[in-house]
Order: sequence, then C-alpha cells, then structure tokens
Amino acid sequence: MAKHLSNLQIDSARLWGAIHDTAQFGATPKGGVRRLTLGAEDKRVRDWFRAACEAAGCEVHIDALGTMYAIRRGRDMTKAPIGLGSHLDTQPTGGKYDGILGTLAALEVVRTLNDAGIETDAPLCVINWTNEEGSRFAPAMMASAAYAGDYTTADILGRTDAEGISVGQALDAIGYRGTEPVGQIKLGSFVELHIEQGPILEAEGKTIGVVDHGQGIIWYDGKITGFASHAGATPMPLRRDALATLSEVVLAVETIAREHGPNAVGTVGEAVIDNPSRNVIPGDIAFTMEFRSPDGGTLDALDRALRPAIAEIAARRKVAIDLDMIWRKEPTHFDPRMIAAVQSASDALGYSSRRITSGAGHDACNMATVMPTAMIFVPCKDGISHNEIEDATQADCTAGANVLLHTVLSLAGVAG
Amino acid sequence: MAKHLSNLQIDSARLWGAIHDTAQFGATPKGGVRRLTLGAEDKRVRDWFRAACEAAGCEVHIDALGTMYAIRRGRDMTKAPIGLGSHLDTQPTGGKYDGILGTLAALEVVRTLNDAGIETDAPLCVINWTNEEGSRFAPAMMASAAYAGDYTTADILGRTDAEGISVGQALDAIGYRGTEPVGQIKLGSFVELHIEQGPILEAEGKTIGVVDHGQGIIWYDGKITGFASHAGATPMPLRRDALATLSEVVLAVETIAREHGPNAVGTVGEAVIDNPSRNVIPGDIAFTMEFRSPDGGTLDALDRALRPAIAEIAARRKVAIDLDMIWRKEPTHFDPRMIAAVQSASDALGYSSRRITSGAGHDACNMATVMPTAMIFVPCKDGISHNEIEDATQADCTAGANVLLHTVLSLAGVAG
Repeated sequence: MAKHLSNLQIDSARLWGAIHDTAQFGATPKGGVRRLTLGAEDKRVRDWFRAACEAAGCEVHIDALGTMYAIRRGRDMTKAPIGLGSHLDTQPTGGKYDGILGTLAALEVVRTLNDAGIETDAPLCVINWTNEEGSRFAPAMMASAAYAGDYTTADILGRTDAEGISVGQALDAIGYRGTEPVGQIKLGSFVELHIEQGPILEAEGKTIGVVDHGQGIIWYDGKITGFASHAGATPMPLRRDALATLSEVVLAVETIAREHGPNAVGTVGEAVIDNPSRNVIPGDIAFTMEFRSPDGGTLDALDRALRPAIAEIAARRKVAIDLDMIWRKEPTHFDPRMIAAVQSASDALGYSSRRITSGAGHDACNMATVMPTAMIFVPCKDGISHNEIEDATQADCTAGANVLLHTVLSLAGVAG
Repeated sequence: MAKHLSNLQIDSARLWGAIHDTAQFGATPKGGVRRLTLGAEDKRVRDWFRAACEAAGCEVHIDALGTMYAIRRGRDMTKAPIGLGSHLDTQPTGGKYDGILGTLAALEVVRTLNDAGIETDAPLCVINWTNEEGSRFAPAMMASAAYAGDYTTADILGRTDAEGISVGQALDAIGYRGTEPVGQIKLGSFVELHIEQGPILEAEGKTIGVVDHGQGIIWYDGKITGFASHAGATPMPLRRDALATLSEVVLAVETIAREHGPNAVGTVGEAVIDNPSRNVIPGDIAFTMEFRSPDGGTLDALDRALRPAIAEIAARRKVAIDLDMIWRKEPTHFDPRMIAAVQSASDALGYSSRRITSGAGHDACNMATVMPTAMIFVPCKDGISHNEIEDATQADCTAGANVLLHTVLSLAGVAG
C-alpha cells in the first residue's frame, strides 16, 4: 500500500449522516427502525442506496433474490472484486445500526476512495444482502446462503411470509427481482463490519473486535410431562412438578455451558406452562433451548453432558423430559489471513482491539464457507440489538469503517 | 344412640344414582360437568334438588344469596339444626364429585332416616351453598363467607362476572334470590363430606380422612427484572437471566416448604416470560407463588425463610426480584369434639382412616369460624379434581356418606 494512504480516514460526519438519513425509512416512535425485508420501507432504502452507489460511480447489479451489488471498477478488471457490505433490512422493532452500519460504511469506503482519487487494483463490490434478519421470511440470511449454495434460488423464491406472500411476489412488488443469477458475481473475498450485539467490547473498553470465529449452534425443542394437581392438597413428596423440573434443567444448562467456557453459552429462551393457575402445580411445560460454541467438538461435548443430566432429573422427579435436537449449525472459522488483515488495519490505525467470537449469525458466516471472509465488530451500548434502543457511538462506528477501509485496501491492492 | 342404629347404612345405589342423574345437568363430552354457579344448568340442578328435598319431607328455605337450606324437622324444634351439605356448582371443566358428593350424601342421609323411620332430637338442615367454586364470581365460597360475617349481603350481590352480570341479577334470572336474610337459620354445627382433592388417602390406602385442619395460605405476586440480551453474543458471566433466576426461586420455595414439612407446601404455579424468543436471554418474568400450612406460626416461618433466600439470589445474579404478598388466610382449626365425632363414626363403621389437613378451601372452613364444624374426606383417583376426569369409587363415596350419617346422628341425638 502506498505510504501516503496509511493515514486515510473515512468521512465520519458523512457516514453518520447516511446512517441517520436512511433511518427515516421505517423510523419508529421510540427511535428505532421497522424495515421488514422487501416491504415498502425496504424499497425506499434500496432506492436511496442504488442512487447513492450510482452517484458514487458504481454500476449496480441486482440478482434474482434482490441482493444488490455495486461495483466500483478497479485497475485490473480481471481480478475478482473484493466484497464489502451487510444488510439494510431490520427486525420488526429493530435499531439503526444492525446491518446498516456495515452497508453504509461500505458505501462510505467508496466515497472516501473517490474523494482521495484512489484506484484499487481489484474492483470493489458493495453489497446489500436481501433478508438477513429472517423476521418476514425464513430462513434468516437466505440470500447469502443461496449465494453459498446452501439453497437453490427457486427454493428461496417460493418461501412465504405470514400472509402467504412469496419472496418472488414480494420482489416483484417492489421491483427488485433482478435478472442476474445468484452467485454470478464471483467475489475474491468478503468483509463485513457489524455492531457486536453483545457486551464484551464495551465491558473491556475495546474499540475493534477482530472476529475469528462464528459460533456453532444446537437448537432443541423440549417438553416436560409432569402431573398437574392441587397446590394445596398435594404434599411435596408426591408432586411431579414440571416447573421445578424445568428449573433444574435451566440451571443444568447454565452449569454445563460454564464448565465448557469461556466461549460456550447455553440458554433456555422460551418456556410455557400449559393451563397455568396460581393454585395448580404445573403439569406440562414446553420449552426451547440452545447451546453455542465456536468449536464443533465443544458442541458435541455440551450435548453429551446434557443428556445424562436431563435423564437424572427426569428419573429423580418421576417426570418425562423429551428433548428434540431440531437444528445444528457448525461453527464458522474465519480465514487466518483475513483475520490478520483486519488485525493489521486496526493496529495501524492505533485502535484497541481483541479477538472475538460472533455469537450471532451473519451473512459473512455463509460467505466464509465459500471464500476468504472477515468480520469487524464495534461496540454497541449495553450489548443491546434487535431493539429500538440499540445504540453505538459515532466514534466507534467511524473506527470500524476506517478498519473496513484499510482492510479492503490491503485486500484489493493499490498501484504504488 | 340407640343400639339398633349402629348398623344403619345409607342406600349406596340411590346415592350413586343421584350423583349420576344430576351429572346430566351440564354434562361435558369428556364425562365431566360444567355447571357455573347461577347459570342455566345450576338452575336445573337446584330445581331437582329442591324437589328431591321436598319429596323427602323437608321444608326448603332460600336466603338472599340463593343458598338452599332443606330443614328436616327434629323432635325438639327449639334445638339449632345440625347443618350438613356442600355445593352443587362446578368449575368450568369440573368433575362429578367435588361438592356434589357432599350435597347429595346429605340428601341421602335424610332419605335413609326417613326409610328407617328415625326422628332426630335436633332438626337437620341439608345445605347447598351458592358459588363455592368462584370461577364465575369472586370470591370463592362467597355465600358461606357471608353467612360467617366476612362480607355483607349487599357487597356479594354487587359482585359481577366477566360479562358484567351481578350476583343479584344472576339470582333473579334463575329465580333463586330468596327472601330470608343470610344467616337467619342459626345452625348448631356443620358437617361437610368432600373428596380429598389430593393423593394422600389413595396413596396410603385409607378410606376416610378425618379433617383436623384447613391450611392457611399466603399468596404472592412476583416479578423478576433481569436483562434481555442476545443468547449467542452474551457470555455466561455477563448475563442477568430472569429464567435462571426464577429457577433458583422455584427450587428455594420447594426446599423451604420441605424444611417446614410434612404439612407445609410451596408452589410457583404461573410464570410468564416477557417477549420470549428462542435466542434471547429472558429479561423479565412475572410469576405467582404460594405457601400453605395448617399452622399460622409455620406460615410466618415460611415467609421469614423466603425473604433472605430471594434477596441472596437477586444480589448474586444482579437482578431485581419484587415479591408482593397479596393475600393471607389464617389456618382453620376444626373443633376437637367434632373431629372426635367423625373419628368415632368412622371407627364404629370399621373404616380405615387417618387425620388429614385440607389443602383446599371449603365452605366448612368459613363455617368453622362461627360454629363447631367437621369435614370428612374420601379418596379421589390420583388426587385429581377441578378436572373432567375427576373420579371416586362408589364404595368410598358410600363409606363417606355412612360416616356423615353417623356423625350427624351423634350430633343431633336420637330419642332412645
């Protein structure tokens, strides 16, 4: 990289302006954003994004699943473009940063290079992936998954929302069903900037998270069958209490996750008592449970530790505990050279940083299965996301965009 | 009691027939009864009951709250009548025995005495209390509570159901608003036969429960305020998990109840996670909790043991646990001479028996505050009640009615 580039920084005010200008598309009274994928508000932000990319000299391609690829030409157009971006759709009561920061920071990288008159060797490709959130259509991250070959385009086009509208119909309705086959644009690598969605960077006072792994996940559906009986008339030793059973399960999950730490986590997120009443001992409970770890062997070990713990609780309490593993996703191992590129960019810019595991799924996790991929995290307030009060500082967003800029420059190369 | 009475038994087939004949009033497809107080089905069973009592030679009085008192004359009408009975209303998906056994067994006692030509010294008063269940109008056991002076008649008449219909309007609608002031019929004592609604008699193979106490109750409303965050991105040590907190609370309640056993019980019956999601750590949970004990001092001790346990859990997990004691009902101590009368009757009839605490509330618990009162329990299948599958054997129901017969004979006296 040319020496004079080492201090190049993005335009913080312009990035911040883009984030807050586009937050009007689906703005909620509490300061968040409701911009469900392929809805009217998504069309508005897509139109804004296409216009901005074209104004920045890019050629915007749209694939059959509506994913937007804005190509900034490089010196050597035989080289595969370096992909950078994220997504502009949100949760039903989402925030202003999840996905949006990474997409608009990618746009800001192009604008910064334009202002500085810098041509990269390889072309760049700013990407807005369709339906990362998965709150209107399942699965989440469907467009990047299709790009990675996990689903056919036809399969995804046929998926329907709660009103029975298919992805294909929704794309047509907003005019974003593109003509290019999914995966036609062959990227050389992909870099995604994102808010952490967890509390670690903030708790440790670090500015940049250099993401080395994405957690693998096991999802379970559970059911406890005890015996509902009168809370006053049933002595303690004769009870088969489903809620007391669940309580032991929850604490066992917590203990097992801690024993496989520091990166393993285990959570019981949902639990519903059947026909609850103040004076009836809970008889039946349905619950959901998950384990996550950045290591596949640890995922196995978590499941192995869980089974006998559950069996012991069920036998001792004379209840049935049914546990159904409904999904397993293997951990993501990000490319070591890509991790090093992010680390170097952060170090060169003088930011504090730490290696970090992504607890959430991202489009980058799909891309990592088919090309060298990196992720950059910046702190978010109190670790909150998927919430209207999701927040991040301008300084941290700017730092993340600068790391994205220099990571991409090192990957794309600049004629010296 | 005259010697020739000692082997007197009720007519088992007639009792069983009455139970199953009246079960048609509100019969449910699953074999239960839906007979909400003061509704159309309740009118039908009341009409049947009045006709049956009058056919048995009784004079039926109805008070201002619709409670039915069928007087069988005694030799000495200056003596206060001996009350016996229960209630004919049911839960929305109730069974054929709860309340009904006690009321129809009281009728059967009169029929048996008629057949045998036996005149008691004191008159008898067969009672059907209005709204024991409390599922249409609150509070439960309202008519006997008003009889005992806990509420004014006007207060109860003004209580409304979910449709806004008042007790007074409902009484008028079925023609059961009586002219007699509540409490005008001064009983000398009261005896109530009831299914146990718990598993103890069945588990121990006993036929008769001689009830010595009714449990006192403390009800709490609880709320846990933790912090909802991403299940994948929040490390175990940084969590403030409301469900893991609740789990410790549930197990603490269980442990505390056991430590104050054998008659103390503690239950968390309801728990609702706010905005639950499979991959979100539960942030807020509302729950309800209760303790019961037949001893007032033990109730105090249960509450005293709970407070520091809750405080320790909240402090350690950095969450708030709010606990609001919303109701306290003191234990019922049944009259020792009445308990002895039931025990003697059971022994004389050769039934196996044990002393037992009533875990549920009953009209008899209200009566016990104003007159000598006794309760007789018989087993029910698996301890189940307030359920369409509630079940009891003909043999046990017959045994309970025989104990009722001989208890009442000993209380009323028979000219020798």
